[in-house]
Amino acid sequence: MTTTTPVARINCQFDAGNIEYLSSDTDHTLNLAIRSDSNSDFYQWFYFRLTGTTGERYYLNLTNAGGSSYPRGWEDYQPVVSDDLKTWYRVPAEYKNGQLSFSVKLQTNSLYVAYFTPYSLERHTSFIAEILSGDCAELITVGQTIQGRDLDVLQLGDSSGDSGARHKVWVIARQHPGETMAQWWTEGFVRRLTDRNDAVSAQLLKRCVFYVVPNMNPDGSYLGHLRTNAVGANLNREWLSPDISRSPEVFLVREMMHQTGVDLCLDVHGDEALPYNFIAGPQGTKSWDDSRENQLQSFKSTLQALNPDFQTTHGYPVPPPNSANYGICASYVAETFNCLAMTLEMPFKDTVDTPDLEFGWSAERSANLGRSTVDAMYWYQQKFWQGQ
Amino acid sequence: MTTTTPVARINCQFDAGNIEYLSSDTDHTLNLAIRSDSNSDFYQWFYFRLTGTTGERYYLNLTNAGGSSYPRGWEDYQPVVSDDLKTWYRVPAEYKNGQLSFSVKLQTNSLYVAYFTPYSLERHTSFIAEILSGDCAELITVGQTIQGRDLDVLQLGDSSGDSGARHKVWVIARQHPGETMAQWWTEGFVRRLTDRNDAVSAQLLKRCVFYVVPNMNPDGSYLGHLRTNAVGANLNREWLSPDISRSPEVFLVREMMHQTGVDLCLDVHGDEALPYNFIAGPQGTKSWDDSRENQLQSFKSTLQALNPDFQTTHGYPVPPPNSANYGICASYVAETFNCLAMTLEMPFKDTVDTPDLEFGWSAERSANLGRSTVDAMYWYQQKFWQGQ
Amino acid sequence: MTTTTPVARINCQFDAGNIEYLSSDTDHTLNLAIRSDSNSDFYQWFYFRLTGTTGERYYLNLTNAGGSSYPRGWEDYQPVVSDDLKTWYRVPAEYKNGQLSFSVKLQTNSLYVAYFTPYSLERHTSFIAEILSGDCAELITVGQTIQGRDLDVLQLGDSSGDSGARHKVWVIARQHPGETMAQWWTEGFVRRLTDRNDAVSAQLLKRCVFYVVPNMNPDGSYLGHLRTNAVGANLNREWLSPDISRSPEVFLVREMMHQTGVDLCLDVHGDEALPYNFIAGPQGTKSWDDSRENQLQSFKSTLQALNPDFQTTHGYPVPPPNSANYGICASYVAETFNCLAMTLEMPFKDTVDTPDLEFGWSAERSANLGRSTVDAMYWYQQKFWQGQ
Amino acid sequence: MTTTTPVARINCQFDAGNIEYLSSDTDHTLNLAIRSDSNSDFYQWFYFRLTGTTGERYYLNLTNAGGSSYPRGWEDYQPVVSDDLKTWYRVPAEYKNGQLSFSVKLQTNSLYVAYFTPYSLERHTSFIAEILSGDCAELITVGQTIQGRDLDVLQLGDSSGDSGARHKVWVIARQHPGETMAQWWTEGFVRRLTDRNDAVSAQLLKRCVFYVVPNMNPDGSYLGHLRTNAVGANLNREWLSPDISRSPEVFLVREMMHQTGVDLCLDVHGDEALPYNFIAGPQGTKSWDDSRENQLQSFKSTLQALNPDFQTTHGYPVPPPNSANYGICASYVAETFNCLAMTLEMPFKDTVDTPDLEFGWSAERSANLGRSTVDAMYWYQQKFWQGQ
Repeated sequence: MTTTTPVARINCQFDAGNIEYLSSDTDHTLNLAIRSDSNSDFYQWFYFRLTGTTGERYYLNLTNAGGSSYPRGWEDYQPVVSDDLKTWYRVPAEYKNGQLSFSVKLQTNSLYVAYFTPYSLERHTSFIAEILSGDCAELITVGQTIQGRDLDVLQLGDSSGDSGARHKVWVIARQHPGETMAQWWTEGFVRRLTDRNDAVSAQLLKRCVFYVVPNMNPDGSYLGHLRTNAVGANLNREWLSPDISRSPEVFLVREMMHQTGVDLCLDVHGDEALPYNFIAGPQGTKSWDDSRENQLQSFKSTLQALNPDFQTTHGYPVPPPNSANYGICASYVAETFNCLAMTLEMPFKDTVDTPDLEFGWSAERSANLGRSTVDAMYWYQQKFWQGQ
Repeated sequence: MTTTTPVARINCQFDAGNIEYLSSDTDHTLNLAIRSDSNSDFYQWFYFRLTGTTGERYYLNLTNAGGSSYPRGWEDYQPVVSDDLKTWYRVPAEYKNGQLSFSVKLQTNSLYVAYFTPYSLERHTSFIAEILSGDCAELITVGQTIQGRDLDVLQLGDSSGDSGARHKVWVIARQHPGETMAQWWTEGFVRRLTDRNDAVSAQLLKRCVFYVVPNMNPDGSYLGHLRTNAVGANLNREWLSPDISRSPEVFLVREMMHQTGVDLCLDVHGDEALPYNFIAGPQGTKSWDDSRENQLQSFKSTLQALNPDFQTTHGYPVPPPNSANYGICASYVAETFNCLAMTLEMPFKDTVDTPDLEFGWSAERSANLGRSTVDAMYWYQQKFWQGQ
Repeated sequence: MTTTTPVARINCQFDAGNIEYLSSDTDHTLNLAIRSDSNSDFYQWFYFRLTGTTGERYYLNLTNAGGSSYPRGWEDYQPVVSDDLKTWYRVPAEYKNGQLSFSVKLQTNSLYVAYFTPYSLERHTSFIAEILSGDCAELITVGQTIQGRDLDVLQLGDSSGDSGARHKVWVIARQHPGETMAQWWTEGFVRRLTDRNDAVSAQLLKRCVFYVVPNMNPDGSYLGHLRTNAVGANLNREWLSPDISRSPEVFLVREMMHQTGVDLCLDVHGDEALPYNFIAGPQGTKSWDDSRENQLQSFKSTLQALNPDFQTTHGYPVPPPNSANYGICASYVAETFNCLAMTLEMPFKDTVDTPDLEFGWSAERSANLGRSTVDAMYWYQQKFWQGQ
Repeated sequence: MTTTTPVARINCQFDAGNIEYLSSDTDHTLNLAIRSDSNSDFYQWFYFRLTGTTGERYYLNLTNAGGSSYPRGWEDYQPVVSDDLKTWYRVPAEYKNGQLSFSVKLQTNSLYVAYFTPYSLERHTSFIAEILSGDCAELITVGQTIQGRDLDVLQLGDSSGDSGARHKVWVIARQHPGETMAQWWTEGFVRRLTDRNDAVSAQLLKRCVFYVVPNMNPDGSYLGHLRTNAVGANLNREWLSPDISRSPEVFLVREMMHQTGVDLCLDVHGDEALPYNFIAGPQGTKSWDDSRENQLQSFKSTLQALNPDFQTTHGYPVPPPNSANYGICASYVAETFNCLAMTLEMPFKDTVDTPDLEFGWSAERSANLGRSTVDAMYWYQQKFWQGQ
């Protein structure tokens, strides 16, 4: 019998996979490139499987890192890897001359490598099925994406009493499909809201109705995109005039928002460059005023007090008055529904103030930030809606 | 606030999904059709999600059932449905005038409906990752499918001693992608073989090396096909002269078989029409003789004795001498490697001798038959290979 | 074969079991009595197993309820029952003429009935073993109880840096063994503190060292006592002058407190009568002043804001100045260590403000209150210890 | 702050605990003794917890091993230890001059050490509650032990049809409480019998009724005994004339056997000395004949064929004709009910033919032997009861 020697192979033909094999310098050095989103120049998300020889070390180069959408994202960045698709840990990397280089030692014949812990469509559907089996969730499928995937909205709230009179909270995640931490965040947020033994959640569900879109962009997610849907639309620039054929995801959700009304809105994202959790507000909107500013600062400082992984020092520059791009969800919603609307950003790297050397910012920490946000909304509800 | 009324929606845009929505007779009666395999006339596998109103009953018609590949398969057949993607139970159906009709009452807003319990590619990769984390498995990725998916072979065996001298057992499953019970079977088979506390498995792994292909046809699986790969090839007719561009799945696995040799081979399938578990042998091969016949009957009667869900009375007619189609795996392997090679068939319906009214033949029972097959191989090894 | 007809049997010969069978009025009506704590008149805790015929309803009378330690505890009280020792739900009961009466219908041959969800010594040891397997816990066994059981203290805190300089937080539970919610509370408290993905816990463990006694009274717990240890000592009256032979539990823990120092102390209890979660402070201590009062009110209002199951309206009357009984833990610790020390009380009944009709106040909700208390301690630490 | 230095402590005050601390040669060398069963000279079972300093190695001497009931049991024996009460692994030991010596290195502050993996009464009640929640089990509590514990019999069988006409199979375990592998065996046996997806079990439950006593001696189990009940009775010598006050366990079960009849009986044990799994038959009974001998040999060789951990070469000497001690269960039952009755013995050590260097003979392997015994009974039923 001739021994079958495994050859190193790179594969990304699966949900959210993205890589291109270019060449090998040696048996163990592989040059790779990240593919652009379809019909778009954006790229930064990568996800692939390496199969090879157990015990061997392989050297991987992302040769086109320098040309990616956010090249500053590679500074102090470490990729995540997993043997078992359950635990994802960080490996050291070097960004030099426009290339991201790192090595991995195989514990078994197969290793998965990604930009951040992936969140698959199968997990998405399983999670929704699990939540529906509880008492306090309804599913509303508002329509389908360009590639025909269901666009699912979870409605959470105590079904007794007059739900019409309650405040409406909208939470959407993953307009940008490569920002998977946004969907991990929704698991923590929704799991806590639907825990019948949680007193905060029980009170909130009596007083508010929540509409949660765990994944605004399932096509882009499946395709391994960074920022766009199947035809190259950046959904978070489409809110002013979404097109049913080019951005049905925004069109359909926006339509439902108009049906329900919106009293508070959170749009959940990841930021490639900044090593911080922070909230960006829509200060550039026309109707922005002191009252709204007070609400925003109150929400941010409450979340900071509740969760040290969140901070208010670092973030995007505050937009000047009347500078808003209403194609962006938070600006559109704030102005249209005259309510507080915010964008939550989480890092792909680690948080510099509260580092975890082994896992960095992670799926689990994202979910915990989602849990804390339930508390922050409870405080917001008590402070600003109590008399209403 | 206007209430958002859910509309019944049919969707199959996910791993292994297959259905076409045709029309609605009423709000609650939906006419559907099964799509053919790509580049092929085969069709029978279906899998879709129905979203609608909790508590309502929906009436579903598979209007083109009569034209499917195995119309006898619909007689006494009941579809499987699931709310939570974990438990799949049977619902009554009627096959009349070429149409399969059944109704479902929604317990939540979302219900999944399928021909048999689906087995996704994500479960496939998670299962392989889980098995690799044990001590006694290696992964050999022999190449890629037409659509670029990895073709994975698990090698199981105690790594101490001279593995070259041991008997080689090949087990392959799901050449026909719609026969998902074949992959559920492999879970039971592989889980038991890799249970270090199982004395039968421990002995077998010392004496044999196992090569298991849990999924011979990942492209067809993802595409929701019944019988063919991405370009319409029926893999179990390709073994005599597989083509790297038309049937790389068979080409690559066959190549590895030639490297390792084969002493026993089992090819695992489902049969649409027969409500029985049975084994078909390659009696039409040139070299078939009494010794081989004895091995075959011994294996079958042992498995029957070990598992009452398996029987030897019903099955395919015994092929006449010298009638073999060497495009079929079992015939090709038997003749080429001069060994016992068999085809295991499991039902899509229930077993008429050992019925389960709630679940019918199921994923769990398929896995248990896989467990029992480990016993049967142990007996075979003791009877026919002991002196060697 | 003569059918074996099950006869209704009552048994409490197991960990924490407590009941006495008196008589049967009919086959299905059983008169029972709660036994007193050994060497003591206290009684109220009960826990037993009823075996009988599946599908039958049995009528149970606790005939001596009226003479129990807290007869007001039976008003609006509902016992908990469980088939599977996992899920415990409430059944209606009537308290009349000094007797508590209720009925149960058997779903299987065996049903467990208790005053509150039991917490066994086996769960205690398994929980400690589980926590020790993490990174941030040490076990200190300070000695043994009168009956020879280990008295375990968990030390939690980041082991890097100078732990001597950090604030010391002591949390003790279940001085009164029948108050099992206190130990359920510690599971939530300790699990959250040791979750490495929880940002609040990570910060707290850097700045404080926690000493947690999950069960101050394992002897009383095993014996099915309400309030005392094996020789009838009420541990929460022993703190001023504990005796190694009569109250070694307090003696040993107090000794270790003197070794470590105490900066904050929480003693966790259940209250038989009041349907509220509340905190009692040691206002009767000599050194009580405005600063201490401010700390107490701040802690209480923070916890109330964090968890609606907790409230500050109802509770014990505030003790007059200089009235403290230093045999009570909170008073002893407050005065001795010059720090805030408090007693947390949870109900055996349901919380009237935030009721759960199926489960009442429960093990799960107790654990969630434990989780919230981590937040409250984090706020306390930031407010009162930040500059130190 | 003075550092609290953990001191090595030995404790056995818990379910099944048994040890006596004698002295320390150094800080890290502890001399211990096994206590005798109450009212009896038997001793060999030990089980205790060692708490000490993480990272330190402790040296333990069982000083009175030489005087134990089965001193040959210490030859080639290795104790089991566990940090987490879930995984129990073996540590090397030396038996010399009547003393068993071994060392352990603490991974956490707490380590459990035992003669074999313990099986607690809490696991016993949880297991019964779990099995009852399925469809095919009834619980019959036949009475109580001397210390008042429930004596539970599980009745397994399809409840449709005439159960009176079916064959009755009795399985009892742990007459000798220190032989915990017997109860681990029953978990595998009962779990498999009640798996509705197992075809062998489904057939068996249609044709037979099973009566399983998972623990014949709960008092002795709790007390940490090797062989006797609370008053020193060796239950497996009490079957001829059990006394309700001295051996109620046998009295009550025997009474129920007379009600149901017995067609096959298996009494499950552990053997301290022999490193083999084997079955002992009651060949010394008066009515023993060729037919019974054939049944016995058939059962043994079937089980051997089904599970390589079982063998038929080594075991007890065959008793001469008419030498039976009818105080022993198998002899009493065989003679009284004119049926095959057997004693299954499993090792405390490892099996020399099929060793596992890390875990030895284990709880998991015992359970797997229980699973295989279901197969053996199915074969027995087909061979000897089919025509009936």
